Amino acid sequence: MKALILAAGLGTRFKSQKPKVMHPILGKPMVWYVVKTLKDAGIRDIGMVVGYCKEQVMEYFKDEGLRFFEQKNPKGGTADAVLSAIDFWRADDGQLLVINGDAPMVKAETIRQMIRFMHMVEEYEGVKLACTLLSAFLPDPTGYGRVVKDQEGYVMKIVEEKDATFEEKKINEINGGVYIFDCAKLLETIFQVKHSPVSGELYLTQVIDLMYQKGYKIRSFMAEEPVEAMGVNDRWELAIAENVLRLRILQRLAKEGNTIHQPETVYIEPDVILEGDVEIEPSVTIKGSSRIGKGAKIGKGAYIESSQIGEGAVVEPYSVIKNSTVEGYASIGPFAYLRDGTTIKSSAQIGCFVEVKSSYIGEGVKAKHLAYIGDATIEEGANIGAGVVFANFDGKKKHKSFVGKYAFIGSNSLLIAPIKVGDYAYIAGGSVINKDVPEGDLAIARARQRLLKGKGFEKLKD
Amino acid sequence: MKALILAAGLGTRFKSQKPKVMHPILGKPMVWYVVKTLKDAGIRDIGMVVGYCKEQVMEYFKDEGLRFFEQKNPKGGTADAVLSAIDFWRADDGQLLVINGDAPMVKAETIRQMIRFMHMVEEYEGVKLACTLLSAFLPDPTGYGRVVKDQEGYVMKIVEEKDATFEEKKINEINGGVYIFDCAKLLETIFQVKHSPVSGELYLTQVIDLMYQKGYKIRSFMAEEPVEAMGVNDRWELAIAENVLRLRILQRLAKEGNTIHQPETVYIEPDVILEGDVEIEPSVTIKGSSRIGKGAKIGKGAYIESSQIGEGAVVEPYSVIKNSTVEGYASIGPFAYLRDGTTIKSSAQIGCFVEVKSSYIGEGVKAKHLAYIGDATIEEGANIGAGVVFANFDGKKKHKSFVGKYAFIGSNSLLIAPIKVGDYAYIAGGSVINKDVPEGDLAIARARQRLLKGKGFEKLKD
Amino acid sequence: MKALILAAGLGTRFKSQKPKVMHPILGKPMVWYVVKTLKDAGIRDIGMVVGYCKEQVMEYFKDEGLRFFEQKNPKGGTADAVLSAIDFWRADDGQLLVINGDAPMVKAETIRQMIRFMHMVEEYEGVKLACTLLSAFLPDPTGYGRVVKDQEGYVMKIVEEKDATFEEKKINEINGGVYIFDCAKLLETIFQVKHSPVSGELYLTQVIDLMYQKGYKIRSFMAEEPVEAMGVNDRWELAIAENVLRLRILQRLAKEGNTIHQPETVYIEPDVILEGDVEIEPSVTIKGSSRIGKGAKIGKGAYIESSQIGEGAVVEPYSVIKNSTVEGYASIGPFAYLRDGTTIKSSAQIGCFVEVKSSYIGEGVKAKHLAYIGDATIEEGANIGAGVVFANFDGKKKHKSFVGKYAFIGSNSLLIAPIKVGDYAYIAGGSVINKDVPEGDLAIARARQRLLKGKGFEKLKD
Repeated sequence: MKALILAAGLGTRFKSQKPKVMHPILGKPMVWYVVKTLKDAGIRDIGMVVGYCKEQVMEYFKDEGLRFFEQKNPKGGTADAVLSAIDFWRADDGQLLVINGDAPMVKAETIRQMIRFMHMVEEYEGVKLACTLLSAFLPDPTGYGRVVKDQEGYVMKIVEEKDATFEEKKINEINGGVYIFDCAKLLETIFQVKHSPVSGELYLTQVIDLMYQKGYKIRSFMAEEPVEAMGVNDRWELAIAENVLRLRILQRLAKEGNTIHQPETVYIEPDVILEGDVEIEPSVTIKGSSRIGKGAKIGKGAYIESSQIGEGAVVEPYSVIKNSTVEGYASIGPFAYLRDGTTIKSSAQIGCFVEVKSSYIGEGVKAKHLAYIGDATIEEGANIGAGVVFANFDGKKKHKSFVGKYAFIGSNSLLIAPIKVGDYAYIAGGSVINKDVPEGDLAIARARQRLLKGKGFEKLKD
Repeated sequence: MKALILAAGLGTRFKSQKPKVMHPILGKPMVWYVVKTLKDAGIRDIGMVVGYCKEQVMEYFKDEGLRFFEQKNPKGGTADAVLSAIDFWRADDGQLLVINGDAPMVKAETIRQMIRFMHMVEEYEGVKLACTLLSAFLPDPTGYGRVVKDQEGYVMKIVEEKDATFEEKKINEINGGVYIFDCAKLLETIFQVKHSPVSGELYLTQVIDLMYQKGYKIRSFMAEEPVEAMGVNDRWELAIAENVLRLRILQRLAKEGNTIHQPETVYIEPDVILEGDVEIEPSVTIKGSSRIGKGAKIGKGAYIESSQIGEGAVVEPYSVIKNSTVEGYASIGPFAYLRDGTTIKSSAQIGCFVEVKSSYIGEGVKAKHLAYIGDATIEEGANIGAGVVFANFDGKKKHKSFVGKYAFIGSNSLLIAPIKVGDYAYIAGGSVINKDVPEGDLAIARARQRLLKGKGFEKLKD
Repeated sequence: MKALILAAGLGTRFKSQKPKVMHPILGKPMVWYVVKTLKDAGIRDIGMVVGYCKEQVMEYFKDEGLRFFEQKNPKGGTADAVLSAIDFWRADDGQLLVINGDAPMVKAETIRQMIRFMHMVEEYEGVKLACTLLSAFLPDPTGYGRVVKDQEGYVMKIVEEKDATFEEKKINEINGGVYIFDCAKLLETIFQVKHSPVSGELYLTQVIDLMYQKGYKIRSFMAEEPVEAMGVNDRWELAIAENVLRLRILQRLAKEGNTIHQPETVYIEPDVILEGDVEIEPSVTIKGSSRIGKGAKIGKGAYIESSQIGEGAVVEPYSVIKNSTVEGYASIGPFAYLRDGTTIKSSAQIGCFVEVKSSYIGEGVKAKHLAYIGDATIEEGANIGAGVVFANFDGKKKHKSFVGKYAFIGSNSLLIAPIKVGDYAYIAGGSVINKDVPEGDLAIARARQRLLKGKGFEKLKD
């Protein structure tokens, strides 16, 4: 079976320069979910009708093996979109699935069931369907197209809200915008679709009427979850769709054996992997292709992007980690910021108000308070005191620093890069270090303390 | 039409010193929403019955053009409250809308429709209603007053839960506590209201019985959303009301073309403006009369109060911004704190663990790590290193600092205010600067580095 | 009445080493809620059947006065579990309540009502029930055991989903897994339970069939909230149960007179006390046995664990407080981190990017920006400047610091412990202090400032 995704529209109600189907849901364009659903349902031959900002859409999906078709007329309507791709399906003697690009909530399982349903109707009832369409039952169907059926249960037509009679408005079964057409019968009818007198568009739903009038059989298949049948037509519906897809991910991760507190507050993107027994506290965000190791604990409000967190690591509340690697049993935060390809080796401790940028932090290193570590290599067991800064920028360019094994960098010290501090070296607190310190030496660079008798009182009183 | 807001009560179940109607929802007193709804519905002549802590209520609304009436008896009841304001409506030959001050969820559109409904009944049915009351349909009406109707659909009376018969308890239509009375007929009946034998109060709902007994016609008008008919009687209902009003704001902002992730976790107050194409990450808070420019991105958990954020600016996660201005394309955070009238000019970068207080930060300035900038003016292109502190307080008073264009303040430096660093000046890292630095000069104030051979080993081993 | 909790299972679907009933909900094991419910319902004589990891379970509840019974066969089934504890109930001539350890949502009030119901049936209908079982009405009962009743309304049997006939599947009343058995009749029937041909287990539900066949009377009692009847079988259901129990806590706290914004985002554990008029902003977490004083305000995203916050104190957004005490009218944060037994006395101010560890901070002390205070005693009225670090670790061990009353510690200073700064002493900004400073003296330890003419230009240009 072939599938055709209609993704040409602008989506006026999005009030955006970006084409509607490229608006992201959990970091992926809305239409990415449609492609994924079709592939997960086993459909390999997928076409996509593009139009508005077509380069942007085609660029994003260039490695997905899709065939693209351009709809020239941006106001052509859905039937015109399907006609734009006629070379994709006209010669096919099987079925064509047509789905809107703004239907990210349709599940692969639903598509599979819909196909099975079609085959079963043929097998058991001896009826070859001209079209099977996805529908849903809504307690309040206001605003949606209704599925009108005849007494035998075959679909007669789809009526839009504004065209519906009083009786038709009472129908609770709505059109989900996913159709499996018999290609030959689609070809037979689609050219007879008439321009809408109101909008001038050619609507695909009219094909249903035409098929019915020809005596062809059409059945609806009801989605398990009504949301599957809902499109995304403005940014509020986008937020709702994101919530639906987000909760599906969280439910899957929980059932795989991870503990997730307050799922409503947790944001995890689809490519994230939790290896099991991970604990996710409320308000955590995990983006990109991050992986969280077995038994790791991700504390309240942590924000992790495209990073690897090792087994048993602990990320304390309100830590931000981007494009970095944290190895097993390391401890990060609270209020730590790791970024730009930083590596934290196992059992290291990066604490409160510490930023680490493009650095290597060796096993068991401690940098527990108020520090900026940039462009540095810090070997195992070293201790970085509170208030220490690695000055990697001199106003012209960036330089690198090196701190050897078990070295001790006293608090409030400044290391001016390029600099090398040897193994077991000791930097006295409050020093400004701009010359290399050999292994095992103590370096000190601070002024002697003087006392001015009684001047404290003077300074404080007026 | 006149409207009268009943706002005299204490609200015992709030367990608070503050009058119930002054408890805030999204930063505004509950009754503020009632005033806004009436004004948005086109009602200009608004009275308010006050009582408990009346000064506080009157002070808050002193510029809103309301007329205040005092209810002397705090236990008088709702009919007594309306009687307290009798001078407001007795001479009126039109209608009086009466609404409780604890009904913040009633929509202006509902009030408008209710008025239109009343006019249509008069026009098309030829019936002049003595009262139109707002109602709602609840699947589980337990606890609410029920609307009892006669066979023609006219309202006979309102029955409270405790007085309801078995049959009446099955009624799903509840009283919403908003009434449009014909003033003359109200005047005719309200004096006949009897004290409740239980509480001794005079209940306004009794006017309905009295009117019906006189043969006057009363109709109910059903609210679109059942929550509109629900009052706020304790702080749990307050939380629910805040959620309802919060989601209405977010829905409006999304439909205006802004992207909002996880609306359940986002808190935006009613006066906030998003200019379009703004992206709001989860858990963002925006308070007061903040304005966020076109295309700006507000990162996870950012907290913005009474501030302006320019077009295309980026606020990284967990930044707190109060009473400040951030211009276009500036970048703030993560973990930045701006406050007290700070201005960040365009393209400036304020980074991680940086606090800026009462300062002017020029175009393209960078202060990216661990710094405290207080009472300073920093001209364009200057660079503030990590760990830099502007010491603005000497134990007695605050002083100001000035840093010129393209100056470079080395890391861990201390600038002791009052101080002036000229354009293109360079402060060596780790310096304590307490004398002005002229344009283009380099200032250094740090001790020379000494090495103590092998003392590092000694310091580290025991 | 005795109660027996079945807590022997592993809970395969949890995919965990930890026994299912020990998985935490709001910081307490799931089964803790069951014990609490029974005790709150007035049941004192409680037995618990343990099995998988029994030591862990028994250790946790060792001070709760429970009697433990071991189920030897991990695949024995629920009837086998009840038989494992036969010594607990065989000689009893009253009732035995049996409840699953994975039913944390059952309310004490429901248990009380269920007992009352049983007594009323006896009293008014003259029927002595062999069993009363908790049930719930679900619109979609798929997957749950159904309660099958005869025409008189007595329970005939419980049918599992997979064994249910087409008609039985339509039953909306599900089995809640809580039973009050007549001990004698239980003894009479339980030995007749047969091994399931599928799993080989002995199911307690079969006792119902057996009792009914003997002509004994069984009634179901419907829970007020359907969730009460739902067990917790995987970690997604764990998340749902946590939400249900969390919202119950928040509702109680709100009704007690505390204001809670966005309850969906707030996490408060069951032992936490809010003293009234507390304001909780969105996304707050409060764990352990914390207590928040009257009128305190806890800002957005604050994270408080096992700490005391005094009356009228203000915790600004994103502060983390662990095992500490904050006295009345103190102000903390934003972005402050207090830990390890820190005490903050009244009216002190701990500000932005300040970490305080194991320290005493006296009345009215200010430490408002970027500081690390560890192992220090700071007397009233002292001022700690921005960037100040208390260096409490010298590479070998930790030392203590002392700062006297009204002392002033200039910004970016380093105090190297052990150190004592006297009352009214003054430390000049940027000093490294490693010798004690007597009362009223001024200490300074920094280099003199030098200027290199025009070198600034040189450093900046290439």
